[in-house]
Amino acid sequence: MDKQERNLKLTLAYDGTNYHGFQRQKNSIAIQQILEDKLAKLFGHQIKIAGAGRTDTGVHAYGQVISFFTTGSIPTEKIPLAIQTLLPTDIVVVSAEDVSLHFHARKSAVSKTYIYRIYQDKVPNPFWRNYSWHIRRPLDVQAMNNAAQILVGTHDFSAFKAVGGVTANPVRTIFEASSCINGSMLEFKFWGTGFLYHMVRNLVGTLVNVGLGKIDKAAFAAILNSHDRQKAGATAPPQGLYLQKVYYE
Amino acid sequence: MDKQERNLKLTLAYDGTNYHGFQRQKNSIAIQQILEDKLAKLFGHQIKIAGAGRTDTGVHAYGQVISFFTTGSIPTEKIPLAIQTLLPTDIVVVSAEDVSLHFHARKSAVSKTYIYRIYQDKVPNPFWRNYSWHIRRPLDVQAMNNAAQILVGTHDFSAFKAVGGVTANPVRTIFEASSCINGSMLEFKFWGTGFLYHMVRNLVGTLVNVGLGKIDKAAFAAILNSHDRQKAGATAPPQGLYLQKVYYE
Repeated sequence: MDKQERNLKLTLAYDGTNYHGFQRQKNSIAIQQILEDKLAKLFGHQIKIAGAGRTDTGVHAYGQVISFFTTGSIPTEKIPLAIQTLLPTDIVVVSAEDVSLHFHARKSAVSKTYIYRIYQDKVPNPFWRNYSWHIRRPLDVQAMNNAAQILVGTHDFSAFKAVGGVTANPVRTIFEASSCINGSMLEFKFWGTGFLYHMVRNLVGTLVNVGLGKIDKAAFAAILNSHDRQKAGATAPPQGLYLQKVYYE
Repeated sequence: MDKQERNLKLTLAYDGTNYHGFQRQKNSIAIQQILEDKLAKLFGHQIKIAGAGRTDTGVHAYGQVISFFTTGSIPTEKIPLAIQTLLPTDIVVVSAEDVSLHFHARKSAVSKTYIYRIYQDKVPNPFWRNYSWHIRRPLDVQAMNNAAQILVGTHDFSAFKAVGGVTANPVRTIFEASSCINGSMLEFKFWGTGFLYHMVRNLVGTLVNVGLGKIDKAAFAAILNSHDRQKAGATAPPQGLYLQKVYYE
């Protein structure tokens, strides 16, 4: 009898500080490579994973999702603990489940949420140095929140794509763009059907210009409608960004 | 005219993950050494600092206090930002003030608070791996809290001193030993006149035995009263410990 092939969906949390992003690289250590190596050890055959979202160097995840096919027989509920003994402590498998053979971590995703954290204080916080963007000058959070509401809806986000980035279709739908404050921590949340490469970090970089009073809400709207990357603000640094959750049907 | 000597008090926050403790070492990098080197650069002469509390490898601080004499003329209010440009990002000078020439960061301290964090969940959290003790099994927090109350007051804490540690006087007064829970995070707070070497970590290691049901409150009291280090639990790992605040007259 042939071994039965099954499709597994794993949800991961990781601290991206020490990795060159999620996607496998030639000359540096990426999270994908570590996962594929350790999963191969656990399942006894080569594993090729699909990841829901690329995360760059220094970007974190609470709920990255990967999927892969295996003929290995380890019971699903035992996978998180078994793989944890092989993985470094900054990558954690939060849960594992069997899914239909049609499921694909990236292609089946219908929406995602990202968090972006800004630590706003005159004095930096050593515990947040790898987990937030430290801004010394006070930000007008109300103005940033107002401007962010312009993003909700379906738009051509070319103004916020990566410089030189090539994307067939720059149109995305944003369901939510909100922020909350907790002490010195300002936390943005973006929920949408998908995000162009560097889009969240470019949005945050431009919203910070609103918060610093460099541009107003109308100017922010004009940048969005210009579809011109040169008009938007600088890319916010990676360490404030977290892939929070990936939603499926 | 001679340059006037002044005594400065600096309050520091640091992430101890990458250092071999606070105190200067011969063959490894300690926080004291980095501070003395950078302060010497800033003030233009050799600086010898006194630290309020030793912290071990991996132990953190929100409010470590140091003091030192200088003839340097940099205005006090400019020190935090000026030294920050020289220090690594995991050591932060939170504030600086001029103090009397009689002030000494350690000898003038009248009490200190330490925090100890336990991350209690089946699944580890990659973001807390260097900042808490991860315990998978559920803890009886009520039982731990009850046992901790025994510590309040003036006691001979020999049972909780470091193995092989020599201390002239093992008597200390604890004003507060409390815990609170926030999601998966259990946070102990100890406030007292002083703490023997490894005392907080030995207290937490033994309280965890209470939380796991291995010993009860009476057994915990018996350990305290035995003055015998062999009877107490294992030393809790360093990364959960934070020097929170040092109090002066």
